[in-house]
Amino acid sequence: MLSKNTVKFIKSLHQKKFRRQEQAFFVEGAKNVTELLRSDYTCTHLLYTDKFAASWPDMVAGFSGDKVNVLPTVLKSLGTFSSNDQAMALAISKPNLPIQVVPGELVLALDDIRDPGNLGTIIRIADWYGIKKMLLSPETADLYNPKVVHASMGSFTRLEFEYVALSEKLQEVGVPVFGAFLEGLSIHAHQGQADGILLMGNESHGISSELEKLVSQKLTIPAFGGAESLNVAVATAVLCDHLRRLRR
Amino acid sequence: MLSKNTVKFIKSLHQKKFRRQEQAFFVEGAKNVTELLRSDYTCTHLLYTDKFAASWPDMVAGFSGDKVNVLPTVLKSLGTFSSNDQAMALAISKPNLPIQVVPGELVLALDDIRDPGNLGTIIRIADWYGIKKMLLSPETADLYNPKVVHASMGSFTRLEFEYVALSEKLQEVGVPVFGAFLEGLSIHAHQGQADGILLMGNESHGISSELEKLVSQKLTIPAFGGAESLNVAVATAVLCDHLRRLRR
Repeated sequence: MLSKNTVKFIKSLHQKKFRRQEQAFFVEGAKNVTELLRSDYTCTHLLYTDKFAASWPDMVAGFSGDKVNVLPTVLKSLGTFSSNDQAMALAISKPNLPIQVVPGELVLALDDIRDPGNLGTIIRIADWYGIKKMLLSPETADLYNPKVVHASMGSFTRLEFEYVALSEKLQEVGVPVFGAFLEGLSIHAHQGQADGILLMGNESHGISSELEKLVSQKLTIPAFGGAESLNVAVATAVLCDHLRRLRR
Repeated sequence: MLSKNTVKFIKSLHQKKFRRQEQAFFVEGAKNVTELLRSDYTCTHLLYTDKFAASWPDMVAGFSGDKVNVLPTVLKSLGTFSSNDQAMALAISKPNLPIQVVPGELVLALDDIRDPGNLGTIIRIADWYGIKKMLLSPETADLYNPKVVHASMGSFTRLEFEYVALSEKLQEVGVPVFGAFLEGLSIHAHQGQADGILLMGNESHGISSELEKLVSQKLTIPAFGGAESLNVAVATAVLCDHLRRLRR
């Protein structure tokens, strides 16, 4: 039986203010919930339907927190999905700890990516390309926003994140910084160094002038047609693919 | 003054059935409307605010169809945007004519891409990479769906489209067909031919088995981490970038 307090708690987690205050968030759908349960996040509650229990009996049986069997209509009323006939889980947010950037690895830094769908998609792309660490400017969307979690398709469980003032952080770590600009070197011509930090700018304004000074290699995705720009998540994927290709 | 009939007509165009029947569609926002007015589409109506007229006086003055100065609230009530303080235009759909595929060019074929946002984003990507022609399976989302038009950011005006049974079309044209599969050749190793048809599959099921037989080169975007897949629009961009890179 789902208590009134749990219902109230879950509803509060739709808001960033309460997610921060309670250091908790929720995850919806079979894909994200199963990834969460397999990860090193601490899950406190599992709400699951008969359908989820039939598909993942061991996961339900092995879950040691509060678990409640519910109807799909309950999941829909508590969450953000237009339909969810599987599961919802609550977990404890990770603390915002400093990330160590080590020479020889590729790290992603996001300068004010405000759209939660873009952030989630970028996390999924980063995970595809084996990136383990992301630096996020304070104005970047909240990692635990339900839309971010959803769009990441479980990938958020495999990366470390730090919200940090990027200008100080980039100066501190001292590795090469790649940034996407309209007037950079074409990635079809770029050779050499492929490790360091890949910096992606805001959807409307690109990389801020303060951070531009810290970019050691400006890169451009060459255009062949009439479109003026690419979506930032799409551009991130093309640049990650390029940098991984150089590393072969 | 906006007539009751025009209001009723625009509202009907939210539905595919009426867009097909009337061979008409609408476009919202300054970016898409200005791109439409510059294109070879025939525009019948322009609804514009004072703000739009101040930014694009020549476009408003030179428009020879029905034009009406309206308040932003009117645009919002007629369209799909949560806010639109600029413009809306109505245009005549293009007929579904056969596309000639010529050796030496890169053409995109979509096998049941059902999400309008994905289709619009793919059109924008195709335009960025200089692709001029797209073949769409009959189950692919409607090109003139407002979400497709919006996500394409005006790029839909620069491409030709044909809705067609892809299996017959691919056999008929006789050019190489590239398809994205999990077990194909890594694009980081693939060399050679870069022209032909790039075939992208459905969001959930990939390329159908019927079409798989017609693929002459299976390609894979190599994965380095834990994510199981990439969004189809993201994958299209990475593959287009690869094929354009080979062509240098």
